[in-house]
Amino acid sequence: MSKSLITLTTDFGEADYYVPAMKGVILSINPAAEIVDLTHQIPPHDIYAAAFTLKCCYTDFPRDTIHLVVVDPGVGSNRRPIMVMTDNYKFVGPDNGVFSYIYQAEPVNRIVGFTTEHYFRQPVSNTFHGRDVFAPCAAYVSKLVEWRMMGEEVSDPVRFNIPAPAVLPDGRVRGSVIHIDRFGNVITNITDAELTGEAMQAGARVRIGKHEAARVLNHFAAAGPNELFAYFGSAGFLELAVPRQSAARMTEARRGAEVEVVVG
Amino acid sequence: MSKSLITLTTDFGEADYYVPAMKGVILSINPAAEIVDLTHQIPPHDIYAAAFTLKCCYTDFPRDTIHLVVVDPGVGSNRRPIMVMTDNYKFVGPDNGVFSYIYQAEPVNRIVGFTTEHYFRQPVSNTFHGRDVFAPCAAYVSKLVEWRMMGEEVSDPVRFNIPAPAVLPDGRVRGSVIHIDRFGNVITNITDAELTGEAMQAGARVRIGKHEAARVLNHFAAAGPNELFAYFGSAGFLELAVPRQSAARMTEARRGAEVEVVVG
Amino acid sequence: MSKSLITLTTDFGEADYYVPAMKGVILSINPAAEIVDLTHQIPPHDIYAAAFTLKCCYTDFPRDTIHLVVVDPGVGSNRRPIMVMTDNYKFVGPDNGVFSYIYQAEPVNRIVGFTTEHYFRQPVSNTFHGRDVFAPCAAYVSKLVEWRMMGEEVSDPVRFNIPAPAVLPDGRVRGSVIHIDRFGNVITNITDAELTGEAMQAGARVRIGKHEAARVLNHFAAAGPNELFAYFGSAGFLELAVPRQSAARMTEARRGAEVEVVVG
Repeated sequence: MSKSLITLTTDFGEADYYVPAMKGVILSINPAAEIVDLTHQIPPHDIYAAAFTLKCCYTDFPRDTIHLVVVDPGVGSNRRPIMVMTDNYKFVGPDNGVFSYIYQAEPVNRIVGFTTEHYFRQPVSNTFHGRDVFAPCAAYVSKLVEWRMMGEEVSDPVRFNIPAPAVLPDGRVRGSVIHIDRFGNVITNITDAELTGEAMQAGARVRIGKHEAARVLNHFAAAGPNELFAYFGSAGFLELAVPRQSAARMTEARRGAEVEVVVG
Repeated sequence: MSKSLITLTTDFGEADYYVPAMKGVILSINPAAEIVDLTHQIPPHDIYAAAFTLKCCYTDFPRDTIHLVVVDPGVGSNRRPIMVMTDNYKFVGPDNGVFSYIYQAEPVNRIVGFTTEHYFRQPVSNTFHGRDVFAPCAAYVSKLVEWRMMGEEVSDPVRFNIPAPAVLPDGRVRGSVIHIDRFGNVITNITDAELTGEAMQAGARVRIGKHEAARVLNHFAAAGPNELFAYFGSAGFLELAVPRQSAARMTEARRGAEVEVVVG
Repeated sequence: MSKSLITLTTDFGEADYYVPAMKGVILSINPAAEIVDLTHQIPPHDIYAAAFTLKCCYTDFPRDTIHLVVVDPGVGSNRRPIMVMTDNYKFVGPDNGVFSYIYQAEPVNRIVGFTTEHYFRQPVSNTFHGRDVFAPCAAYVSKLVEWRMMGEEVSDPVRFNIPAPAVLPDGRVRGSVIHIDRFGNVITNITDAELTGEAMQAGARVRIGKHEAARVLNHFAAAGPNELFAYFGSAGFLELAVPRQSAARMTEARRGAEVEVVVG
C-alpha cells in the first residue's frame, strides 16, 4: 500500500471535533494516508480565502497529492461534491467556486461529481459532509478507486470571477486587495505582468485609500520604521507592508479595496 | 513494528512547548507511533468540554486507536493516571471524570491505574504529567506492554453526572446546553429519542431564555437570514444556529442553560 | 529510506499558506520525512520566545531529530541561513540568535552556513526563506546530504545575552521573567541552582513588582483560591501562578521584569 498524501483546508477551526472526525474517517478507510493540515482557520464560509490560500501553496506538494477543501456554506443543499483532476493533483470539495483559481491556473482533465453513496459514511448527516462525504471520498480516491465507480463527469462547475488588474492608457495600474495575512500584509492581485521591472525602477508609488507606499522594495529589512512600502511577495503578487506592524490596520484595507500604482 | 495511532486531546493550546514535549516523548519511546491531534484548544481545566469533544469523534478512528486526554486540573495531587479499555479503543488520562461519556456509551472491559514508575519519564515533575506520566504510558501501551506490568485494576473511577433530558407529561421536552462550538452553534443534550419525527412534523419550537427557534430544519440552507432555527447536528444532538451568525451570542446561551421544546 | 523527524517552529501562525508551503517543499524533497509541529504561534519576529520554546522541549525528541526554526525578521537581508550540529540534534534556521540557548546548553560540534544555491527552492523570494531556503535545506539534511556540499563552516554565530540570575550577599536571589505561557504562568530564569531546597524550607517569598508569592509549593492543587504562589515548573525554572487564573494578568508581569526571592 503506497503512502498517499492528503491535505486538509477547512473553516472548522481546531477547537471542535470536526477536523479530527474527518481525519479518523480517512485513516479508517486508508491507514496509509498521510494527512497534512493546510489550514483550518479559513474565516467561516469564506470560499474566497480558501481558494486563495490553496492557490498559494498547492504546487509545493508532491505530485499525486490530494487536496481536500471543506469550506461549505451550502452543506445540506443540492450543491454537488466534486473532484477536480489535473495532471499533478486531485482536488476534492464542494462545487461552490472554491477551485476557481485552479480552473484559471492549469488545464483540468476531468471534473467528477460524487454520486455513489456506497463511498459515503452512513448515515449522511445534513450538516457535516466534511466527515460524511468529502473525507471518505478523498480516502477512497487515495486508495485509487476508479472515478467511474464514484460518480459522473461534471461539465459546468461553479466558478467565481477572479478580479483582474488593469493597465490604464496613462500607465497606471489599477488592481484590488485579494487577501490579508496574519501579519497584516495586504496582498493585491497585481503581478510583474502588469508592473515591469523598468516601471519599478522609474519609481512606482502604490496608493490605497488615502495612503501611499512611496517605494517598492526588495525585502522588509530595507524599509524604514513605520514605512508603508510595497514588494512582490512569495506568492508572486504585489503586497503592502509596514515593518513589524499591520499594513491592513494602518491603511484600513479590506478585501476588494482598490489599489492603484502610479509610475514615474 | 506495527503503526499505532494515538490521538491527543489537551487544554495546552499550541503556543507553548507542552504539546511538542509530549509528542517528542511518545516518538522517543515508539518511533512507529502516529500521532493525530484531536484538539489542544479545550478551555483550560474544562474536563466537561474535553469529555464532550472526545465523545463526538472517538468512534470515527480505527480500531485499536489510543485516545490520550490530558486536561488535568488536579496535576500533582493524588488523582490517579488511568487507562480505560473497551472492545475497540484504549483511553489514557487522569481519573477526573473526563471519560464519563465513555463509561455511559459502551461496556468497559477494564480500567487500569498506572502505578509502575518504570514507565514514567524521570524525574516526574509536579506540574506536567502530560509529558512525564501520560505520554510515556500511552507510548508503552502503543508498544503493547501488558497492562499488568504497568499498574493495577481500578474499580471506582471518577465520573461526573451527564445531564439527561426529560419528557414532561404534557409532551414538552426539557434539556440543557452541553456545548457551544466555534461557529456559535448551541448544542443541547436532546436527541431523537426524546423528540420524534412525528413530534417534529407536528411543529416543534425550541425555547432558550427569551428566545425561540420556530422551526426544526434539515439543513442550514433552508433557514432564513437572521433566523434562529433548530436541527439535529452531526453528533446526534438537537442544536440551535443562525445562518452565518453565532446563535450563542444571539441567545446569550451558556453551557448548562435550560432548553425547552414545545410540540404542536 | 529511513524515517527522518523534522520539527517546525515558526511565527507564521496557522491561518496562512506559509506553514503548508514549507511542509509541501520538505515532503517533495524527502517523502519519508515526518514533520512534527513544535509551534507556529511564536509572536511575530520574537526570536527570544522561539529560543525559549525550543529550549524547553528539544531534548524530548529522539536522537537525530532536525529542529527547523523560522523566526526571521531579517529575511531578505544578509543574515546567514545556518545549521547547528550537536551530538544528538541538528538545528536549522536563521543566524539571528535563535539558537542562543543551544550554544549555552551543550557542546556544538559544527555550525554550517548554507551557501550552495543548488539546495534552495528556485527562484528564491526575498520574503519567504522558510519555503525557499530553510525548508529545502532541512529536507536535504534529512536525506543525509553531506554538510560540505551545502555550505561552509561558520565560526561567529550571532547569539543574544541570556539574562542570568544573581545571588546577592544577603542571600536574596534576583532574576527576571523570561517567558509567559498560555495559562498566564510567569516563568523566571531562577533555577534550583540559585534557590536550594534548604532555602525554600526556610520560607522563600517571591516578589514581582508590588506583588508577592508567599509560598513555594510543590503543585497547583496545594494553592488556595486566588493565591499567587511559586513552584518549580516542568522546564526547571521557578514560576509564578494563580490557580485557574492568569498570574501574568494579576501581577502585570512582562518578559524582562525583575523578580526577587527573599529567604527566611
